[in-house]
Amino acid sequence: MNFDISPQLKAQLAAIRRFVESELYPLEPALLKEGFNAIKPRLNSLRQEVKERGWWLPHLPEDHHGMGLSLMNFGMVSEVLGGSILGHYVFNCQAPDAGNMEILLEFGTDAQKEQFLEPLLQGSVRSCFAMTEPEFAGSNPVRLGATATLDGDEWVISGHKWFTTAADGAQFAIAMVVTEEGDDIKPHARASQIIVPLNTPGFELVQNLSIMGERGEDYLSHAEVRFNDCRVPVSNMLGERGKGFSIAQTRLGPGRIHHCMRWIGICERALHLTCAYATQRQLTSDQTLADQQIIQSWLAESRAEIDAARLMVLRTAWLIDHQGARAARQEISTIKFYVAGVLQRVLDRALQVHGGLGMTDDTPIAFWYRHERAARIYDGPDEVHKLSLARTMLKPYRFRKDK
Amino acid sequence: MNFDISPQLKAQLAAIRRFVESELYPLEPALLKEGFNAIKPRLNSLRQEVKERGWWLPHLPEDHHGMGLSLMNFGMVSEVLGGSILGHYVFNCQAPDAGNMEILLEFGTDAQKEQFLEPLLQGSVRSCFAMTEPEFAGSNPVRLGATATLDGDEWVISGHKWFTTAADGAQFAIAMVVTEEGDDIKPHARASQIIVPLNTPGFELVQNLSIMGERGEDYLSHAEVRFNDCRVPVSNMLGERGKGFSIAQTRLGPGRIHHCMRWIGICERALHLTCAYATQRQLTSDQTLADQQIIQSWLAESRAEIDAARLMVLRTAWLIDHQGARAARQEISTIKFYVAGVLQRVLDRALQVHGGLGMTDDTPIAFWYRHERAARIYDGPDEVHKLSLARTMLKPYRFRKDK
Amino acid sequence: MNFDISPQLKAQLAAIRRFVESELYPLEPALLKEGFNAIKPRLNSLRQEVKERGWWLPHLPEDHHGMGLSLMNFGMVSEVLGGSILGHYVFNCQAPDAGNMEILLEFGTDAQKEQFLEPLLQGSVRSCFAMTEPEFAGSNPVRLGATATLDGDEWVISGHKWFTTAADGAQFAIAMVVTEEGDDIKPHARASQIIVPLNTPGFELVQNLSIMGERGEDYLSHAEVRFNDCRVPVSNMLGERGKGFSIAQTRLGPGRIHHCMRWIGICERALHLTCAYATQRQLTSDQTLADQQIIQSWLAESRAEIDAARLMVLRTAWLIDHQGARAARQEISTIKFYVAGVLQRVLDRALQVHGGLGMTDDTPIAFWYRHERAARIYDGPDEVHKLSLARTMLKPYRFRKDK
Amino acid sequence: MNFDISPQLKAQLAAIRRFVESELYPLEPALLKEGFNAIKPRLNSLRQEVKERGWWLPHLPEDHHGMGLSLMNFGMVSEVLGGSILGHYVFNCQAPDAGNMEILLEFGTDAQKEQFLEPLLQGSVRSCFAMTEPEFAGSNPVRLGATATLDGDEWVISGHKWFTTAADGAQFAIAMVVTEEGDDIKPHARASQIIVPLNTPGFELVQNLSIMGERGEDYLSHAEVRFNDCRVPVSNMLGERGKGFSIAQTRLGPGRIHHCMRWIGICERALHLTCAYATQRQLTSDQTLADQQIIQSWLAESRAEIDAARLMVLRTAWLIDHQGARAARQEISTIKFYVAGVLQRVLDRALQVHGGLGMTDDTPIAFWYRHERAARIYDGPDEVHKLSLARTMLKPYRFRKDK
Repeated sequence: MNFDISPQLKAQLAAIRRFVESELYPLEPALLKEGFNAIKPRLNSLRQEVKERGWWLPHLPEDHHGMGLSLMNFGMVSEVLGGSILGHYVFNCQAPDAGNMEILLEFGTDAQKEQFLEPLLQGSVRSCFAMTEPEFAGSNPVRLGATATLDGDEWVISGHKWFTTAADGAQFAIAMVVTEEGDDIKPHARASQIIVPLNTPGFELVQNLSIMGERGEDYLSHAEVRFNDCRVPVSNMLGERGKGFSIAQTRLGPGRIHHCMRWIGICERALHLTCAYATQRQLTSDQTLADQQIIQSWLAESRAEIDAARLMVLRTAWLIDHQGARAARQEISTIKFYVAGVLQRVLDRALQVHGGLGMTDDTPIAFWYRHERAARIYDGPDEVHKLSLARTMLKPYRFRKDK
Repeated sequence: MNFDISPQLKAQLAAIRRFVESELYPLEPALLKEGFNAIKPRLNSLRQEVKERGWWLPHLPEDHHGMGLSLMNFGMVSEVLGGSILGHYVFNCQAPDAGNMEILLEFGTDAQKEQFLEPLLQGSVRSCFAMTEPEFAGSNPVRLGATATLDGDEWVISGHKWFTTAADGAQFAIAMVVTEEGDDIKPHARASQIIVPLNTPGFELVQNLSIMGERGEDYLSHAEVRFNDCRVPVSNMLGERGKGFSIAQTRLGPGRIHHCMRWIGICERALHLTCAYATQRQLTSDQTLADQQIIQSWLAESRAEIDAARLMVLRTAWLIDHQGARAARQEISTIKFYVAGVLQRVLDRALQVHGGLGMTDDTPIAFWYRHERAARIYDGPDEVHKLSLARTMLKPYRFRKDK
Repeated sequence: MNFDISPQLKAQLAAIRRFVESELYPLEPALLKEGFNAIKPRLNSLRQEVKERGWWLPHLPEDHHGMGLSLMNFGMVSEVLGGSILGHYVFNCQAPDAGNMEILLEFGTDAQKEQFLEPLLQGSVRSCFAMTEPEFAGSNPVRLGATATLDGDEWVISGHKWFTTAADGAQFAIAMVVTEEGDDIKPHARASQIIVPLNTPGFELVQNLSIMGERGEDYLSHAEVRFNDCRVPVSNMLGERGKGFSIAQTRLGPGRIHHCMRWIGICERALHLTCAYATQRQLTSDQTLADQQIIQSWLAESRAEIDAARLMVLRTAWLIDHQGARAARQEISTIKFYVAGVLQRVLDRALQVHGGLGMTDDTPIAFWYRHERAARIYDGPDEVHKLSLARTMLKPYRFRKDK
Repeated sequence: MNFDISPQLKAQLAAIRRFVESELYPLEPALLKEGFNAIKPRLNSLRQEVKERGWWLPHLPEDHHGMGLSLMNFGMVSEVLGGSILGHYVFNCQAPDAGNMEILLEFGTDAQKEQFLEPLLQGSVRSCFAMTEPEFAGSNPVRLGATATLDGDEWVISGHKWFTTAADGAQFAIAMVVTEEGDDIKPHARASQIIVPLNTPGFELVQNLSIMGERGEDYLSHAEVRFNDCRVPVSNMLGERGKGFSIAQTRLGPGRIHHCMRWIGICERALHLTCAYATQRQLTSDQTLADQQIIQSWLAESRAEIDAARLMVLRTAWLIDHQGARAARQEISTIKFYVAGVLQRVLDRALQVHGGLGMTDDTPIAFWYRHERAARIYDGPDEVHKLSLARTMLKPYRFRKDK
């Protein structure tokens, strides 16, 4: 084992960090009080700068305009970007576009790549991923109500989705819909992924969901949408029919690394803000918050938990890099619930140390406190991942017993 | 000991509960999506109905238009009202008006009562309490920057406050300001409470603070305000000079009961919503969320913690009723941190069971999750109350040792 | 509601507390280092003293030589006794004798009462209760392997039991054995309780189990036993055939109160020892452990949790007193897991504050830390009680849904 | 970064694991019920076998008869050994001998090495380390009462120590005693380390402490000892006068790795036992403990926490290997409290799943549950390490503020 990182990567991370700190942190107050659209022009010029510096698409190979990093090394970049609410967007590796890019790269036809992937890579459009449905529990993804039926050379799509992240302002959705029905079809083979341009007649953005008091807008929103008999050409099928879940599966590993390292970036930022605030907030003329043992013990616990979380995620990324996502399945489940738990505890302590200020939008902590509560829910609630991990752990013991 | 409650009180609580459930719960969706002002007319007519039913001012004695309940029995009413975000407001016992009423009742002059208290009791105006300052840690209340200096027969008030709850739309503030200075003045004897009509020149409502993404409005807001040389007649001094803290102190016990029972009401509602949702949310064709052991164990833990919390608070209220707040000081500190902790855990579990829905404003859970995070902070952070309780506990041991 | 206790009870509790503190605490060091038998003579003379003072059998009615307390008031006595490892034994209300007495009182024939109950009440003998079996999970009590078959006018008992508390030195056991078999017999109606004198041929005390490094002896031991075709007269059946579980059920409520209040007594003693040690243990020339914030916050948390636990248990006892154990079923489950959790946390904090000393047998904390770990296991593991409580809570919601 | 380990090391670890599982696990029941001395002959022959296999002294360089592993790689061996209570002893790397060997190697004179180190390396004798004193809090190590005064060419040692691990049966102690006094001596420069053969007149092994109900014996014991004017030649001073603490300091890093990896080995074993027991313990005819969600979620949490802990410790070992213990100070503090916490939670869950069996000495879990409770106490209580870590974390922020 070797816990060192190369001097080149170190330098790269340091440069990106300086950029994030000097260019993105200062934009957050406006974001938090005026909303995403208010700062969008500034963000777009920063995106241009990122391109020029060679940091664009840090998650993609070089031959697709990306930085050409291993998943582990991208993970470290993702942590740095996660320090700001805006990091991933400005580097064009934000969810759900990053995942859509990867799926299109691996499964898209040449025509799909030209029409849908290329503008995404350019950053000239955004996309969304329509999977979760209000009527079915997300923890059991094979239960879906949305369907697509073939009518001539068109798929006719009908369904109701929510938590379609960033649909507001997106140009197209990749929709998970049931296309294969019949008693002989296995649950995991019923759905397909189909690309739906959002100007397709019948597509309806019902609302940006009111989430924790905010509907948000554009990239920072989660929509309820309806597909009312939307017709798209058969050529919009992504990959093969019935492979919707297996395609989604391929995204699971990298997507998990992306999120987990982003969460760790949030943790580091929150811990930094906490240390900074605690040392300057006077309680009495000669005591600051930082002199209080209880707060000190929280800082230490956060430090330990963040470091543990990072090692867990980087090791998982390394496993995926070297042995593939299949070999790392157990670890991919583990980091989901483990890091989400750390994130919540670190943010909770950070907010408590900030006191009243922590409740306000004068720091990004309250934003993360409310919105990243979802980290324990999305991509499968933590509990589902625990049970799944346990079943894998128990398999050899059950087998042994049966013999 | 006797854990029974009288048939009359039982009937009263049941009737109030029916009213809250049938009249207030249905107003919450509009509140959560359109804001307080959108439903204010409806609320005002409900307030009228509450008056007619004899439930107005449940915290006050009958000779002041109230219900004439003991603090313990009011506590039980407060729990029922707490089940809705709107309960206390509709019964005219909302913070900070409830506390201001009590202070004015006990310390106000006849003129003050006529000018300020009477309209409050009528419900025709609202008030606020300006104490916390951004520049000083709230956990050490004797550190204050706001001052009032005597100029002829006027106090000239100058200061900067925040978290002045419900200042937006209020008619007057009670402001905590330093009036007594000098080396011989003890820290606790430096401040006074002065009534400041908000139309006084120099008063500035800087902003409704952006808290957890929302500025809120009217009763549901927390303001940053400035007193820029506001002049009020000397007759606006509430109680004696230098008694600001000791007046505030008298409110501590009843105010704590009010909040803690309100939190318990929130807990009960959240637990109810959770049980209801869990039993109807299908995971598979024959399993609901309610069939999952992990969720069952959360429900049981919430049930136990809520019951424990309620007994702790009611016993504290009973102690205050029978022996006075001074005798119950230790308990008053204890319930602050104990119940705030229960509240957060119960809400967290409720949200997690609701999954994505829990993140939305389709239930009141997300509202409480974000706004009641403040319960661990306001009225002194939990940690301060723990240390204070511990010091009381340790006193007899230290004494013993010295002998 | 009324949280007061009568002056008489207060005086009684204070007197018992003085006795426990002055007579029993000083015997603990010898107990912990030399074992139970070493101090038994002294304990027997103290038992005599307790009889003379009128405190003997505090859990029983006056017409059975007891103190005639309500269950709630006995609970308060049990807390005081629980402060010492020896309290319940010296007052002759120790498990499992206390439970056996109650069963014999309610279900015993006159002959059984004379032969078995009377000497128990006198304190001249001890008994045990043989239920748990190594081969079957205790969390599902209806699964039992031990049987009794009728042969003429004798029951022939055969079975293997463990955790037969205090079998070492006992004169008789009450054994839970399957007597009714057949497809039409419901699981709960298969077992009976039969009294087995331990000098019956075929009875074998295999070993006092080695528990947490100690086999213990006499009252403070848990045995593995075997019934190898033990023959007892049919008249030794306790209650009716097939009523074994329903008889055990009647003991559940009072037994739970007994244990939970004993645990609270342990908590109070541990907290007292902790406060006393913390104030005198110097860290530096001017700082003691008691000056450390982290320790202070633990003391406060323990204080709060103990107080909450006590109220929960007393309310449950009151419910049983006034409405019967059936009405209090939910509460009886709740206090099991709730108080066991408090006990473990309080002991853990107490031990940590004591540092190395806490690991030694110079205080009773290490004894409780290791032996009371079982509190979360015996009488059904906490998890089983949580699930059972949850199912009760969910019932009305499921019903509603079905309609 | 690279999370792989070399094929050679993998093979070595696998071979050691097979040995530990096949030779040491089967000895544990006898250890737990009959004590250390009962199995000592068998252990000594296993030690011989370990020597022959080339695994002796895994913590030492090859030129001192050791395995020549890096600290990180020794850490992995230590984990495997930790799976059995007996692992470190049989490989002659048990505390406190392992530490004493390292100190003697680095600071001993040739004569000391010949007289004291050589027999230790051979495994023909054992040693102990006498530092902690009952009169002073171990969390502040510079406070010591034991002294050595020079009288001619002898040091005369006087003092009272406890938790002198494994003194029973040891041949010599290394004693930490105050030798330098005077107002100008800094607290950290007052103590020296002196080697005291235990047959020195005046040395008194007062008792093996009764810890968690057991006094233990030989290697598995912790003694209270007294030095009553013990005279040893001046040549028994280890290193320079006044360097006692700085010598101890050098041991801190490797010692921490040793313990933490041993704890992780315990965790893995406990988790393994739990999975094995859960899959075979029937609750009903078709359900085992392993089918219960609550238990599954515990297994997953333990898995995650153990993996996180291991990565933390290995990274710390790697840091020490490559940058020295000084550079890794923060990490050395972190793993102390972090891994001790994981250990306790994993053992607690393991015990709970085992139910009654977990309380008995039929598995090693109860042994670890009670004795490894000390992990949160020895080498400085966790809380002290948290505060120390926090102060290091806060330093740059304080500095910034001052400018």
